[in-house]
Amino acid sequence: MSIHPAIAHLSPLVGTWRGEGHGEYPTIESFDYTDQWEFIDVGKPFLYFIERTWNAEGSPMHTETGYIRAPSPDTLEIIAAIPTGQSEMGAGSCTAFEDSLVLTTDAAVLNTPTAKHVDQIVRRYEVRGDELTYVMDMSAVGEGLTLHLTARLTRQG
Amino acid sequence: MSIHPAIAHLSPLVGTWRGEGHGEYPTIESFDYTDQWEFIDVGKPFLYFIERTWNAEGSPMHTETGYIRAPSPDTLEIIAAIPTGQSEMGAGSCTAFEDSLVLTTDAAVLNTPTAKHVDQIVRRYEVRGDELTYVMDMSAVGEGLTLHLTARLTRQG
Repeated sequence: MSIHPAIAHLSPLVGTWRGEGHGEYPTIESFDYTDQWEFIDVGKPFLYFIERTWNAEGSPMHTETGYIRAPSPDTLEIIAAIPTGQSEMGAGSCTAFEDSLVLTTDAAVLNTPTAKHVDQIVRRYEVRGDELTYVMDMSAVGEGLTLHLTARLTRQG
Repeated sequence: MSIHPAIAHLSPLVGTWRGEGHGEYPTIESFDYTDQWEFIDVGKPFLYFIERTWNAEGSPMHTETGYIRAPSPDTLEIIAAIPTGQSEMGAGSCTAFEDSLVLTTDAAVLNTPTAKHVDQIVRRYEVRGDELTYVMDMSAVGEGLTLHLTARLTRQG
């Protein structure tokens, strides 16, 4: 099965990535975690992704899942489900540099009745060879758009 | 790993279900499909789910993924990512009858800029022993809330 032509330019992102992440936010204590992202080509004009994280003791922490769409070679759309009670929908850009691919999305969020309120999620992924850098800014619980997550991962297998 | 106490009452839903589905909507031709739902216990206070469907020739059609949360034994929350460009967030109920478990959710939707517009998704799952019945109503592309999907599945393995 070859990758769908509409997302062929995203092929550098396809695969399993694993590394270390750091989390922070004005309302919580900072934390470190092991981060894993899988971007999976399912033969359709979108990528399926699932993230899993673990704490230093190896216990599962966070997970989220969703899809990345590419309406055009330089635009992106993201749809994500977050089990803390958020559904995320955003748009953004995909830019190919000489030695890297940069994806950014800026998203609105719906929150379930019992969830902590998140208003906005801004993601940035940069693939450079076998390295993936991930940064996520978030506006939540009354705070403005603020850095929340930074992770550096390497391609597995 | 035992199921998290907060979702123990959802354990009849956990597993892989497969069967036949029928789709219809005022704006499209009716269609039939093979439907598979997996509801997966990941040791957290939510269930992870992924649906995959295939047409009569065995080619992949639709997929979606997300989480079911249970704030209390009789309430539900759903967060879903749909690769046609929808992120779904809803709340609902879980009712245990003598021989069945019925879950319903009524959800709002965010749509990506290039997606067909969906306004509302209402889902109903009924587990009766090894049978799962699934019905989905949808308000989309200017139509009011209308039946879209009906499927009858049996527990696998």
